[in-house]
Amino acid sequence: MATTMNTSNEVQARETSSLIGSDKVEGTAVYGADQKRIGNLERVMIDKMSGKVAYAVISFGGFMGMGEDYYPVPWPTLKYDPQLGGYLCNLTRDKLDNAPKYSKSTGWSWTRENDQRVYDYYGAAPYWGV
Amino acid sequence: MATTMNTSNEVQARETSSLIGSDKVEGTAVYGADQKRIGNLERVMIDKMSGKVAYAVISFGGFMGMGEDYYPVPWPTLKYDPQLGGYLCNLTRDKLDNAPKYSKSTGWSWTRENDQRVYDYYGAAPYWGV
Repeated sequence: MATTMNTSNEVQARETSSLIGSDKVEGTAVYGADQKRIGNLERVMIDKMSGKVAYAVISFGGFMGMGEDYYPVPWPTLKYDPQLGGYLCNLTRDKLDNAPKYSKSTGWSWTRENDQRVYDYYGAAPYWGV
Repeated sequence: MATTMNTSNEVQARETSSLIGSDKVEGTAVYGADQKRIGNLERVMIDKMSGKVAYAVISFGGFMGMGEDYYPVPWPTLKYDPQLGGYLCNLTRDKLDNAPKYSKSTGWSWTRENDQRVYDYYGAAPYWGV
């Protein structure tokens, strides 16, 4: 796991085979189950207590940052696909249409209830201790 | 844990009492044991396998991004201090002088050996399974 194919030190400092920098993750394209682009990875949400990445937040739609929707998605549901050059998630367009989301105007309540709702929706194991 | 003092939805979307957005962490000031500013939090490094934040990388010194030093620090050694408006770490100037670091030109090998070296230096429990 110690070797890396990267030749540039700057790139190497932001990603290796086992680690990835937060600023490298942000802005990366996200593709759905049909390999069509569904949006960009806006940020990850870190659980302060455990230090675990709880969510990837995917931004979708809108124009120049207006009218965008944000989808909080359990981090483990995303896998990086080197050929696509982005994250692949097991989401179809239909599943995304009904997924928990928020907008800049509605905001999102990061409550345990909503944690449960999102993690249930994607069938992921909870990041919080249960 | 569900309540938050933030009034803006945009702020709320990036930080709550239990979660924090990666783009909120980046650029935040870091203070040493004497409450003097020692640098900025450049990025966090995420362990892809476990989804755990392995490191905070602190940038220090330099001018306009040139000649900066980067200190990989175990994430659990940083605590956010609301009064300082930044992360407080248990580092003195002396300890920082001898801490493992890299520059843009030298780069850093994110090997298990170096993981061990850094985590030993700060006396932190390893993020990887042992």
